[in-house]
Amino acid sequence: MKKNEFSFIGDIATLFSTIPHHGFEPIGDDCTLIELGDDALVMTTDMLVEDVHFLRAASSAEEVGEKSLLVNLSDVAAMGATPIATMLSIALPANAQEEWAEGFMRGYHEASHKAGVALVGGDTTSSRDRITINVVAIGRAPKSNIKRRRDARVGDAICVTGKLGRSSKGLVDIMFGDLNTIAARHHRVAQARITEGVWLGTRSEVHAMMDVSDGIASDIKHIMEMSKVGAEIDTQRVPTDYDLRYALSGGEDYELLLTVDGAHAERLCREFEAAHGTPLTIIGRITEPTSDDVCWMEGEKQVEMDIKGFTHF
Amino acid sequence: MKKNEFSFIGDIATLFSTIPHHGFEPIGDDCTLIELGDDALVMTTDMLVEDVHFLRAASSAEEVGEKSLLVNLSDVAAMGATPIATMLSIALPANAQEEWAEGFMRGYHEASHKAGVALVGGDTTSSRDRITINVVAIGRAPKSNIKRRRDARVGDAICVTGKLGRSSKGLVDIMFGDLNTIAARHHRVAQARITEGVWLGTRSEVHAMMDVSDGIASDIKHIMEMSKVGAEIDTQRVPTDYDLRYALSGGEDYELLLTVDGAHAERLCREFEAAHGTPLTIIGRITEPTSDDVCWMEGEKQVEMDIKGFTHF
Repeated sequence: MKKNEFSFIGDIATLFSTIPHHGFEPIGDDCTLIELGDDALVMTTDMLVEDVHFLRAASSAEEVGEKSLLVNLSDVAAMGATPIATMLSIALPANAQEEWAEGFMRGYHEASHKAGVALVGGDTTSSRDRITINVVAIGRAPKSNIKRRRDARVGDAICVTGKLGRSSKGLVDIMFGDLNTIAARHHRVAQARITEGVWLGTRSEVHAMMDVSDGIASDIKHIMEMSKVGAEIDTQRVPTDYDLRYALSGGEDYELLLTVDGAHAERLCREFEAAHGTPLTIIGRITEPTSDDVCWMEGEKQVEMDIKGFTHF
Repeated sequence: MKKNEFSFIGDIATLFSTIPHHGFEPIGDDCTLIELGDDALVMTTDMLVEDVHFLRAASSAEEVGEKSLLVNLSDVAAMGATPIATMLSIALPANAQEEWAEGFMRGYHEASHKAGVALVGGDTTSSRDRITINVVAIGRAPKSNIKRRRDARVGDAICVTGKLGRSSKGLVDIMFGDLNTIAARHHRVAQARITEGVWLGTRSEVHAMMDVSDGIASDIKHIMEMSKVGAEIDTQRVPTDYDLRYALSGGEDYELLLTVDGAHAERLCREFEAAHGTPLTIIGRITEPTSDDVCWMEGEKQVEMDIKGFTHF
């Protein structure tokens, strides 16, 4: 359950807290989790609505199919689990029930095939005028591989995979009609650091992990809150090819944000890059919980940042 | 994945058949299933769209909340599993984000509480003009309790819980403006034979089981197809308070349709009624596979039935 998009959501966790959890962990991570024997099964769900999350004029049906899948697989991999299956529900208006639906399934299937993820259930229905898609992704891992937001420790290095800001730069490109930039394509399709997440799941020096969906300035607060720690981030170290605003508060990058035992972080970064050909960069450290806000640095100097957060279109 | 609502769906199972199933059973039952140790976890998902599955003018928000949950719990119980948790995704237009959303959650929570089912995840988003709801229900059972559509055997008695036809009679009442009949209320809210399904799961004389969502005339064909058997149903034995047409081809009754070892069926029916205060009625028997159609009987006499099936509004 994502945070407080509407006022009534805030109370839901409290409302349901009196019902037995039957082995499921409380809401708060990228996925919900149930342990069965030595393994854990993780599950996540995301709903995509036409004209809110995508425009038929700006994204091809194939791209929407691919993105619907990948944003969910990203949540699974961010727990250190291997995505194994999905369930797909889709509501289609009359004008999307043939060509558009086929294109969507082509994109969804190709990305499923690439990730080795089965389709095990779902629902299809008609709708009056707009497309709605709901994907459930299921992952599996040895219990000991699971990474949670609550496991950051004081002294951990804060690390991030890849480079940040490309998806929101792509969204801005699209808004200006530049549909074919690399960033625009990246925004329309998303990525999922699946191999990387599963690899990081096997490493005991990785403590907390999540994917970056709303920008690190906003997402690191989930780790701070769940782990009851503070965070210091050096803006000069944040890996990006774009404006710092995109990199800190741009949404939908789907890179992995993790905290790593401070004594082993540099070695892990070297091994990660050797294994995956993608950088893993130390951008800060976990501190005692002094403030609800991130402590922003420019090298040795503390700076004020005015970060307003990012609104998905 | 429900059957062929659109032409592209027919190919989906084939399209995805080359991807490893990672322990999930192939599509074809009320729920998908994965075995983990001695237990099985079952999962199902259903999407409800405003103006397709419900009208805000005809159903209260509480009723939509209750029904969204119960139709999914019904699928879980129809496998013989105990529903333990759900995930809820909901897209809300501006005019449903406060009062309607609160009413919906009240209905969803009350029904969850009554069934002892946790809420373990979900997603909320805005939409342009209509409400879309997607529910995932998760159940758990000892592997040996799971009932599948493919397990009917020649000589089995065909049985059904409760009485049929009430939900479609209720829909007709609603269409004529009679919103407050017992049948109309039943249609708006649905029921789920949860205790009954779990109880039947523990009985080894029960072979195949599913819930009745499209009317028994249509639903029995899933058992016939999956089990490669024929079926003979005596219309005079079909339990209903309404017109036979409602009872055979009316949708959304959510009673349980099952096949039971012929030698033990009468005893099971007596024990079922004693345990649950609801009838379990023998309405026919499983035969060798002679035809794709059901063999309809009136007592000893074979009759022709012209059943066109039921279209959900």
